[in-house]
Amino acid sequence: MAKPLILVTNDDGIVAPGIRALVEVAMELGDVVVVAPDSPQSGKGHAITIHDPLRLKHVKVFAGIEAWECSGTPVDCVKLAKHVALKHRQIDLCVSGINHGSNASINIIYSGTLSAAMEASLEGIPSIGFSLLDYSFEANFEPAKHWIRHIMQSALEHPFPSGNLLNVNIPNLPLDQIKGLRICRQADARWVEEFLEARDPNNQPYYWLTGKFVNEDPGDDTDVWALENGYISIVPSMHDLTNYTALEPMRHLERLGQ
Amino acid sequence: MAKPLILVTNDDGIVAPGIRALVEVAMELGDVVVVAPDSPQSGKGHAITIHDPLRLKHVKVFAGIEAWECSGTPVDCVKLAKHVALKHRQIDLCVSGINHGSNASINIIYSGTLSAAMEASLEGIPSIGFSLLDYSFEANFEPAKHWIRHIMQSALEHPFPSGNLLNVNIPNLPLDQIKGLRICRQADARWVEEFLEARDPNNQPYYWLTGKFVNEDPGDDTDVWALENGYISIVPSMHDLTNYTALEPMRHLERLGQ
Repeated sequence: MAKPLILVTNDDGIVAPGIRALVEVAMELGDVVVVAPDSPQSGKGHAITIHDPLRLKHVKVFAGIEAWECSGTPVDCVKLAKHVALKHRQIDLCVSGINHGSNASINIIYSGTLSAAMEASLEGIPSIGFSLLDYSFEANFEPAKHWIRHIMQSALEHPFPSGNLLNVNIPNLPLDQIKGLRICRQADARWVEEFLEARDPNNQPYYWLTGKFVNEDPGDDTDVWALENGYISIVPSMHDLTNYTALEPMRHLERLGQ
Repeated sequence: MAKPLILVTNDDGIVAPGIRALVEVAMELGDVVVVAPDSPQSGKGHAITIHDPLRLKHVKVFAGIEAWECSGTPVDCVKLAKHVALKHRQIDLCVSGINHGSNASINIIYSGTLSAAMEASLEGIPSIGFSLLDYSFEANFEPAKHWIRHIMQSALEHPFPSGNLLNVNIPNLPLDQIKGLRICRQADARWVEEFLEARDPNNQPYYWLTGKFVNEDPGDDTDVWALENGYISIVPSMHDLTNYTALEPMRHLERLGQ
């Protein structure tokens, strides 16, 4: 039987340790092709490159693995993977990450890692974004790899419905302290931002975005709760942003101008 | 009574005709402050600028209106508006656009216009993204302005719940051919992409993203249906991407590794 074809991408760039860890797991489960950004793309959200051309270059980064680096965003990588690098080949699973840092809760909309996975799901490819709650380049991915292997294997054996993607976040804990997996909803948390102001040599101001993540969602069914309590969080996510509960309450607008 | 404070932004850049049209309507209804990108930012989705500093510069673009241009993405503009330009002032409404081109259906996730509005809604500011289905720089915004005035006035008189945003798309029709407003769900449509390949002087390939928008959603309750039938579409939208219908079907994953 042919092995499944697994597309691996990320937003930290093709040389990040996190994508290497993900490739190592994927190699055990299928044929792997990597299409990833040639530079860090954190915070790029669902950005695509419209007004500039894109480069896609065959590179040798992982021994024995077909790999391409792309000059664009994570979403561009998935589009180029589907339509150029893997044209005419069926992609059975797309995995994105392992991100260096959390993509729980509202981070899903800022995250290049998750936007790449969402783009794949829009193309009908089952897809999973993986993130480890450790921002450092020297993060220990071994406990994460153990659990990612389980999740990827399950996704390959029981493909979830088209259009679905999973947002998986992994606490930064030793293997024996991770309690297991939790299916969660996205916590209603947000960033409380501030800007650091500085001055250039011409005394003109410039600003650095900074801030802290604040969770005021009291639920014990959220991804943030799961992570704070030693579980890996899995949020089934989607691209339909319609607020269905608001359709009827907003219906009065249809009478405007009549 | 103090006039409401209206923040105006967009993704086509501060000199685009669409934002000028929106400012003209907003001026009739409240005090207006513009914080918009200094260059076109189409397709930037929910990108934020993490690894570079941002510039925010007071500019005179609209007679009698406080305006700032920002070097970042549309989402950066809203963050800088809230935390720097309008620090300590309460923003009553954020309007983004008028975008030159459709942001119906799945375009919401690629759109800088809508991402700016969503970012404002995350900050608790009622917000609306407006788009006209005409990509040209010479688009006629007059029919759109008529309807936008109605919608903004209603939003100021009956603020919708925090966290809500409206994705408003306007067909490119003369005023007397627009049938009215429709509350809709996001159509389940998508882009079918291809890449144009070209060669540089060193015979190396590069790629331009192109594609066409395909709607296979048969519903007559969608934004695409409304627009094709002469209505202005209003989709109440949100930032919770949890696929609630998938929570129970995915619950079996919790048994993995046990």
